[in-house]
Amino acid sequence: MSPVSHNTGNENEITIHTKIDRVGVARIDSPLTFSNFVDDTPYPFFLDNEFLGGLNSKPRKLSFELAGPRKKIYFDPPKTRCAIVTCGGLCPGINDVIRSIVMEAAHGYGVAGVLGIRYGLQGFIPKYKHEVVELTPDSVSQIHQFGGTVLGSSRGPQNPEEVVDALERLNVSCLFMIGGDGTLKAANAVSQEAQRRGMRLSVIGVPKTIDNDINFISRSFGFETAVQKASEAIQCAHTEALGSPCGIGIVKLMGRESGFIAAHATISIKEANFVLIPETRFSLHGKGGLLPALEDRLRKRGHAVIVVAEGAGQHLMQETAGTDASGNPILADISHYLIEEIKSYFSKIEMKVTLKYIDPSYIIRSVPANADDRVYCGLLGQSAVHAAMAGKTEMVVAKLMDRYVHLPLSLVTARRKKLNIASSYWRSVLESTGQQATLSGMLPGDFYSDEKTE
Amino acid sequence: MSPVSHNTGNENEITIHTKIDRVGVARIDSPLTFSNFVDDTPYPFFLDNEFLGGLNSKPRKLSFELAGPRKKIYFDPPKTRCAIVTCGGLCPGINDVIRSIVMEAAHGYGVAGVLGIRYGLQGFIPKYKHEVVELTPDSVSQIHQFGGTVLGSSRGPQNPEEVVDALERLNVSCLFMIGGDGTLKAANAVSQEAQRRGMRLSVIGVPKTIDNDINFISRSFGFETAVQKASEAIQCAHTEALGSPCGIGIVKLMGRESGFIAAHATISIKEANFVLIPETRFSLHGKGGLLPALEDRLRKRGHAVIVVAEGAGQHLMQETAGTDASGNPILADISHYLIEEIKSYFSKIEMKVTLKYIDPSYIIRSVPANADDRVYCGLLGQSAVHAAMAGKTEMVVAKLMDRYVHLPLSLVTARRKKLNIASSYWRSVLESTGQQATLSGMLPGDFYSDEKTE
Amino acid sequence: MSPVSHNTGNENEITIHTKIDRVGVARIDSPLTFSNFVDDTPYPFFLDNEFLGGLNSKPRKLSFELAGPRKKIYFDPPKTRCAIVTCGGLCPGINDVIRSIVMEAAHGYGVAGVLGIRYGLQGFIPKYKHEVVELTPDSVSQIHQFGGTVLGSSRGPQNPEEVVDALERLNVSCLFMIGGDGTLKAANAVSQEAQRRGMRLSVIGVPKTIDNDINFISRSFGFETAVQKASEAIQCAHTEALGSPCGIGIVKLMGRESGFIAAHATISIKEANFVLIPETRFSLHGKGGLLPALEDRLRKRGHAVIVVAEGAGQHLMQETAGTDASGNPILADISHYLIEEIKSYFSKIEMKVTLKYIDPSYIIRSVPANADDRVYCGLLGQSAVHAAMAGKTEMVVAKLMDRYVHLPLSLVTARRKKLNIASSYWRSVLESTGQQATLSGMLPGDFYSDEKTE
Amino acid sequence: MSPVSHNTGNENEITIHTKIDRVGVARIDSPLTFSNFVDDTPYPFFLDNEFLGGLNSKPRKLSFELAGPRKKIYFDPPKTRCAIVTCGGLCPGINDVIRSIVMEAAHGYGVAGVLGIRYGLQGFIPKYKHEVVELTPDSVSQIHQFGGTVLGSSRGPQNPEEVVDALERLNVSCLFMIGGDGTLKAANAVSQEAQRRGMRLSVIGVPKTIDNDINFISRSFGFETAVQKASEAIQCAHTEALGSPCGIGIVKLMGRESGFIAAHATISIKEANFVLIPETRFSLHGKGGLLPALEDRLRKRGHAVIVVAEGAGQHLMQETAGTDASGNPILADISHYLIEEIKSYFSKIEMKVTLKYIDPSYIIRSVPANADDRVYCGLLGQSAVHAAMAGKTEMVVAKLMDRYVHLPLSLVTARRKKLNIASSYWRSVLESTGQQATLSGMLPGDFYSDEKTE
Repeated sequence: MSPVSHNTGNENEITIHTKIDRVGVARIDSPLTFSNFVDDTPYPFFLDNEFLGGLNSKPRKLSFELAGPRKKIYFDPPKTRCAIVTCGGLCPGINDVIRSIVMEAAHGYGVAGVLGIRYGLQGFIPKYKHEVVELTPDSVSQIHQFGGTVLGSSRGPQNPEEVVDALERLNVSCLFMIGGDGTLKAANAVSQEAQRRGMRLSVIGVPKTIDNDINFISRSFGFETAVQKASEAIQCAHTEALGSPCGIGIVKLMGRESGFIAAHATISIKEANFVLIPETRFSLHGKGGLLPALEDRLRKRGHAVIVVAEGAGQHLMQETAGTDASGNPILADISHYLIEEIKSYFSKIEMKVTLKYIDPSYIIRSVPANADDRVYCGLLGQSAVHAAMAGKTEMVVAKLMDRYVHLPLSLVTARRKKLNIASSYWRSVLESTGQQATLSGMLPGDFYSDEKTE
Repeated sequence: MSPVSHNTGNENEITIHTKIDRVGVARIDSPLTFSNFVDDTPYPFFLDNEFLGGLNSKPRKLSFELAGPRKKIYFDPPKTRCAIVTCGGLCPGINDVIRSIVMEAAHGYGVAGVLGIRYGLQGFIPKYKHEVVELTPDSVSQIHQFGGTVLGSSRGPQNPEEVVDALERLNVSCLFMIGGDGTLKAANAVSQEAQRRGMRLSVIGVPKTIDNDINFISRSFGFETAVQKASEAIQCAHTEALGSPCGIGIVKLMGRESGFIAAHATISIKEANFVLIPETRFSLHGKGGLLPALEDRLRKRGHAVIVVAEGAGQHLMQETAGTDASGNPILADISHYLIEEIKSYFSKIEMKVTLKYIDPSYIIRSVPANADDRVYCGLLGQSAVHAAMAGKTEMVVAKLMDRYVHLPLSLVTARRKKLNIASSYWRSVLESTGQQATLSGMLPGDFYSDEKTE
Repeated sequence: MSPVSHNTGNENEITIHTKIDRVGVARIDSPLTFSNFVDDTPYPFFLDNEFLGGLNSKPRKLSFELAGPRKKIYFDPPKTRCAIVTCGGLCPGINDVIRSIVMEAAHGYGVAGVLGIRYGLQGFIPKYKHEVVELTPDSVSQIHQFGGTVLGSSRGPQNPEEVVDALERLNVSCLFMIGGDGTLKAANAVSQEAQRRGMRLSVIGVPKTIDNDINFISRSFGFETAVQKASEAIQCAHTEALGSPCGIGIVKLMGRESGFIAAHATISIKEANFVLIPETRFSLHGKGGLLPALEDRLRKRGHAVIVVAEGAGQHLMQETAGTDASGNPILADISHYLIEEIKSYFSKIEMKVTLKYIDPSYIIRSVPANADDRVYCGLLGQSAVHAAMAGKTEMVVAKLMDRYVHLPLSLVTARRKKLNIASSYWRSVLESTGQQATLSGMLPGDFYSDEKTE
Repeated sequence: MSPVSHNTGNENEITIHTKIDRVGVARIDSPLTFSNFVDDTPYPFFLDNEFLGGLNSKPRKLSFELAGPRKKIYFDPPKTRCAIVTCGGLCPGINDVIRSIVMEAAHGYGVAGVLGIRYGLQGFIPKYKHEVVELTPDSVSQIHQFGGTVLGSSRGPQNPEEVVDALERLNVSCLFMIGGDGTLKAANAVSQEAQRRGMRLSVIGVPKTIDNDINFISRSFGFETAVQKASEAIQCAHTEALGSPCGIGIVKLMGRESGFIAAHATISIKEANFVLIPETRFSLHGKGGLLPALEDRLRKRGHAVIVVAEGAGQHLMQETAGTDASGNPILADISHYLIEEIKSYFSKIEMKVTLKYIDPSYIIRSVPANADDRVYCGLLGQSAVHAAMAGKTEMVVAKLMDRYVHLPLSLVTARRKKLNIASSYWRSVLESTGQQATLSGMLPGDFYSDEKTE
C-alpha cells in the first residue's frame, strides 16, 4: 500500500504517485447520476518546504488520486452498513462531517444504515457499555448547528482486535474514523486486522486536529473557525493591556508541537506583539531575549500582547514525565512559567506592570464551524463516502492546495506537520508583528544555531 | 445631603424623598431647545425585597429625582471645563459612556472642553506622569466600537486632596467618575474636599460594576453584554461535557459578593445544572450536598455543567489574608478547590469523569457593548452631563425600574447589592435549572438555618 | 373582568387595581416546593406619559397582580392538558417561550401533556388539516437555538366557536396564545365562548410584537435582539454611505404604527442622521423639510444615513386600499417613495448622490433571541404556566418596570402603544442624532400643530 | 509583457511561464533583513477545468512567479512615494489591504509616504475636487475593524492621461489599485501611459470582486466573509419558510455573471433547496422546470428555500438596455420576475403559498472581514508592496492554490471566471442540495444542449 516513488533524475521534480489499496475490484454501477465521475488518474501537485520541511524552498512534484464519486463502486449499497466514530479532542465541524457522511451514504447511495459509535474507540469495546446509535438523515439534519460531536469522544487506544470483533458483530463494511494522529494510526491497525481476517472492510480517515499539524494537510477542518475565536481572545487581551498602565495581555493557544493557530491568529488580528511557538527556541534573558524586548515595548508603547502556543518554550523548563491517555507527552506549563518569569523580571527592575492571562482553549474548540469550515467539512464527508463505496481503504480524504484528494494513511502519519520557520509563511508572521524579528530564535538561522548550541 | 425619610405611618409605604445637593442656584438658561425639560419633583417607585433585601417581599415607596435636562443650569457652558476618569476593572460600555458625555457636553451644551484623565485616579497624581488628554467629538466618535476604556484605568485609592489640587490646576468644574463602589466613595471624598475649599465642583458618578452589585441599581451597564458572553461560555462547557463519557463542564464567572452574572446567564442558557453563588451556603458532602447531586446527575444523564461565581463557597475554604489594590478582600480560589474536591470524590468511588474548566472572565468584560447596553450607556452619559450642568453633585445617574434617576452617593454606597435568595428572581433561577432545589442552601430557609449553625 | 378604578381625588395618583378573573376557586395544593409563593395582592407602579400618552408627564399610580407561582392552584396537574399556539409574524424568542411553557408545565407541575397547534389559529380548524403535535421536554430541549417558531404561524382570525370546538375535542384546560394585538383579541373571544359553554378554560396570552407596540408592555420579548440586528444594518448603511461621494444609506425598519425599533436602534448605533417614525409628521420640502436638511448634511459631511420605520410618512402619500390577512391596513411604501423623492430632488439641483437601500426586516425577526431576551422569554413562559394553573384567564403575562405582572386582556388591547414624542425617551433620540431637532415634526409642539393643520 | 507559452508537446502539460515586466533593473539592497528572500523562478501549478473552463478536467501545468520580498529592489525607499486607490463596489477586507500596504511600505521599507486617493479614480481628476489624504501607520492602525473602504470608492473609468498627470504631480512611484475587472484594465492603461512618458511607475493590482469572478483567482478576498453573511441570510429565509404553511424563502445573492457566492453559501448552510446561477439555463415550466419542482417540494415537505444569483435566468426575461457607470450591462431583475411567476403559478393551481424575499446584498458586502479574510488581505497587501518595490508592474498579487503569486494583468483580465458546471465543485453543490439534480439545466449535458437550442 505504500506510496510508490519514481525518481525522474531531476532532484526538484521527484514524482511520487500514490495509489490507494482497494478492498476489491469495483464492479457495481454507482447509483449516482452525474456525468462527470472521477477516475483514479493521479493529479500532480508541486509542494514546497511549507509541506516538505527543510530550508530548501524548491517545490517538488507529487501526485495523488482526486476525491470524488467513482463510476464503478465496490460495495452494494442496499447491503452496506457504515459506521462513524469520533476520537480525541473537540474541534469545530465534527458534526458537519458526521452529517455529511450520513446524508451522502443515505441519500446519495442508499446504504442499508449508518451506525454511530459512542465516545470514540471505547464505543467498540463491550466493557464500556456504550450504546451504538442509528444515524439517519432526520436525526442528523440539525446537528451542524452545534459544536462538539453528537457521538461523544474519548482519548486513548483500544485493542484493534476488539474493534474488528465489534465491526463484524455490527456487520459494518465502511468505517469512517474522524480523529488525529493516534486515531489514524488506529485506523491503519484496524484495517490490517480486518485484512488478516479476510474481512471486506473499507477504513477511511477524516483527519481532525485543531493544531493543524497533520502531515500534507494544508489546513485541517475547523482551523479557520478556531483562528476566528482565537483572534477574538487576542483582541480581548489587547483591550485589557490597553486598560492598565504597562498592561500585558497573554493568550495561550492550542499547539502542542506546532504553532499554526498562534501564527495564523497573529497575522489575523495584528495586535499581538510577541508570538511564541514550539518550532522556535527563544530565550528569555539577554540580547534577543523576550523579557528585555517586552520591557522595551512597554517603555515605548505602554502595553503589549504575547501569544503563546501551549507547546512553546519546552526547552526552557524542567523535563516532564509521563504521557496522557492519547499517548501525547504531558507538556510543561509554559504560560504559568512565563507569567512567573515576567513578574520576577519586572519586580527586579521595579517596574510596575499589570498582567492579564487568557486561556480560551475550550471556547475555541467547542463552537460550531463557520461557513467556510462547513463547506470544507461537507465536502470531506461526501468524499469519504465516495472513497469507501469505491472500496478504497487505509487512506484519508483531505484538501491539498484547493483540491480534494486521497492520501495514504502511511503518508499522513509518517510525521507531525510543523510550521517551517524557513517558509514564506513564517516570514509573513514576523512581518505582521514587526517586533518579532528582534527576538532571537525567530529566524531560521537562529533556529539552527540554537539546535547546535543547546 | 442625606436622603430625607418621611414615615407615613404605614409600614409598607415608607416614603423616602431624595434631594440631590446643589453646587449653587441654577440661574442660567439652558442652551438646549427642548420643550419638555425635567424638573426636580421626585418620581415615586415601589421597590420590593429584590432591592431592599430581607424576607419580606412587600414593596415600599421611594421617590427620586428624574434624570434629564433642566431648564435652568448652574454652569455657564463656554466657561465650563469637564473631566472624565474611569476606574477599576473593565466592563462593556465604558467607551460608550465616555463618548456620550463628550458628545452631550460639546454638541449639546457647547462647553469649553472635556479632559480625559488617564489610568484612573493615578491620572490626577503628578508622580505617575500620565498625560491628560483632550477629548473631542472627533476623537471619540468611533470609540464605542471597542471594548475597554480609551482612557485606561487603575485600581486603588488616591489622596482626595491631590485629586482636587489637580482639578483646580486643570480648572475643571464638572467631574465624571465612572467606577464601582470604591470609586463612588472616592467621588464623595473629592466632592467634600472641593466644598471644603469653596470650589464650585460638580461630581457625578456613573456606577460601573460587572458584578451588578451596586445598591439600588437594577442592572449596571454592560451587564447584559457580559451575560451574553457568559452564556456562550456555558454553552461551550455544555458541549465539552457532552463530548466525553461522564463529562463535567465548570464555568467560573465574575461575582465576588453577588452572583448576578452567574444567575442570569444560567436562566439564559438553560444548560447549567448547578449554580453556586456567594449568597448561598451550599455543602459538598452528605444529603443535599453538591457532590452526591453531581454523581446522581452523571449517572442519570451522563454529563453536567456547574456555574460558579468567583465568590461562592468561601465558607468552605481556609481564611485568606490581605486585600487587593482596590481594598477588596482577596478571595480563596473556589474553582480549583471544587475541581480538586470533584476529582477526589469520583476517584474514591472509582467513577471515571472528564472535567473541563473554563474561566472566561477577561473575554466577558473586554468586549464592546451590545445594542441594548449601548442605548443604556448613551442615556447614562447624557443624563450625567445634564445633572452636572444643572449644578448637582454627590450623586450617580442610574436606571431604576425603566426610569433614569439621580441617586445620592450615600445611598448607593451604603451597602453592596446582593441577590436576594428570598426573591422571585432567585426562585426563577432554581426553576430554570431544575436540579437546584435538591441542593441544600439554595432555598431561603436553608440559607438562614445555615447562618445559625455555621 | 374589567379593571376597577378607584379615584383617590388626587388627579396624579389615580389608583387602578386590576383583578384577573378566575376560572374557579383555587383549592389544590401546588406541587411546587418553594417557600416564597406569590399572592394576589396588587403591586403598585407609577407610570408616566411614556405609558399613558399625552403631554402631561406626571406619573399616575396603577396596581397589578404580580406573576409567579401560587400556593393553591385550580387545575389538577395529572388531569390537565395544555395547548400552545403561535400567531402572526416571526419575532426572536418565540421558541424560548414555547420551551419554557413546556418545561414548567411538564417538570414543574407534571401536567398530563402539552399540545402544539400548528400554523396559528388555522391549526384549530379541521379544513386546514394541520396535525396537532405533542410537545415534550425532550422534543423542545434545543428549540431555543433556532429563530422562528417550531409550531409555524399564520395570520388572520378564525371562528372562535370552531377554536373552542377543537379545544373541547382535544380536552385542553390551559391555552397559551403567543401573538400580537389581533391574537390577544382572539384570546378574549375564545375565553368568552368557553365561558358561554361552561367550559373550564384558562386562556393566557403572551404578547408578541416586534414593533413593541402593545399597550402597557415596556418592551416586548425579542425587541432587544431585533434592535441589535437593526443596528447592524444601520452600521452597514453607514459604511455604504461613507463609501461613495455624497453617499446616502437608507434603512427601512419594522414599525407600522410605532417607531420603537427605529428609535432604539438609532440611539444604539449613533450613525443615523435622520429617523422617521409614524408618530411624527415630517415634511419633505421647505424650511424644516427632510430634503433640504439632507442636502445640508451632505454638503457639510459628505454622507448621511436615514432610518425609516415602515409606517412613517403615510400622510405624504396617496390613500391605500385594503387590509392584510390580519386586518392591518396595507401601508403605502414609504421607502420607495422616499427614494424617488430624493433622486428627484438631487437631480433637480444637479447634485450627484449615491443611494443604497437596505430592508433587513426578515433578517431581524427570524434570528434566535440574545441572552437577555432568552431570560425574558423564559420567565414569561414560566409565569404563563403559573397563571394558568392558578385558574386565571383573559390576561397576559408581561414585564412592567422590571416586574413580571398579570395584565387583563382588555387593558392591553385597548389601544396600540405609540412612542410618545413628548416623552424623555424621544428627546434622547433627538439628542443622539443631533440633526433631528432641525426637522419640523420632530418636536411635540410641531406634532400637535401638524395635527391641526393637516 | 504577455505570458510566454512553451508547448512541451504533451497536450495535458502545456507549460506557461509568466514573466512580469520590470520597471527597471533592481539594484538596491532591500532594507528587509530576512534570510529567505524570494527569487523570480516560476513556481509550477497544475490547474484543471475549474480554472481553465471546458468539459475536460485534465490538469495543465502553468508556472508563475511567487510573491514575496526580493533581495534587490528597484525603488529607493526614502525617495519613494506610494498611492492607494480603491474602486468599484464594497467588499469585506478592503481596509485590511490598505492597512497592510501602509504598514509594509512604512515599517518594512521606510518609504517617503503613502497617499490615499479618495473615491476611486475620481480622486485623480481635478474637477471632482476630492482631497488626497496622507496615510500613516497611526491613521490606519484600526481601520481593519470597519467594513467598507476608508478611502471611499466610485464606479466608472477616468481618462488614463489625467490619472498619470495626477501621479506625476503627486510624485508617485508605486500605485496600488484595489478593484475589479474594470479597475484592472484601467491599471493596464495607466501603466502603459506612464511607460509612454518614460515615467518609472509600478502599477500593482489587488483583485477585488465579491462575485469571485476574476480569472485565475481561486478565491478573491472577502469571499469567505461574504459567504458567512450570505449563509446567515439563507438560514433566516429557511426560518421564515418553516414559519408558514407552504412557506417559500427566496434569497437574492450577488453574482452578475458567476454564481460562486450562491453556490458556496448553499453548500455551507444546507437549507437551500434550489440554487439558480448565471452559468445554468434552467426553465420554469414543464418537466425539469423550477415551478413544478417547487410544487413537488412544498407538497412533500411544506417549505422551500430558493437561492438566486442576481445574474441568473437572464435568458428568461426581456432584453435590457444600457450599462451602469462601470460599463456592466444592467441586469433584468430575476428575483422579482421569479416572485411574480411563483405567485402566478400557485394562484393558477389554487395552492396557497407564503413567500418571503430577502436581499442581503449591502449587508453582505459592507461588514468587516473575518479572521481568515484578514490573514489573506494582510498577505496580499504585503505582497503588493514587495512587488512594487522590486519594480514589477502590470500585475496583480493573488493566491493560487494556497500560494501567493504574481499574475500578469493581461491574464486576469482576459476573461471573467465562471463557475464550471462540469467541475467537481458544482457536482458537490448539487449533492448538497439533493433536489437540484432534478432540475434541467443543472447538469453539464443539459447546459450544452441548452446552448444549442436557445
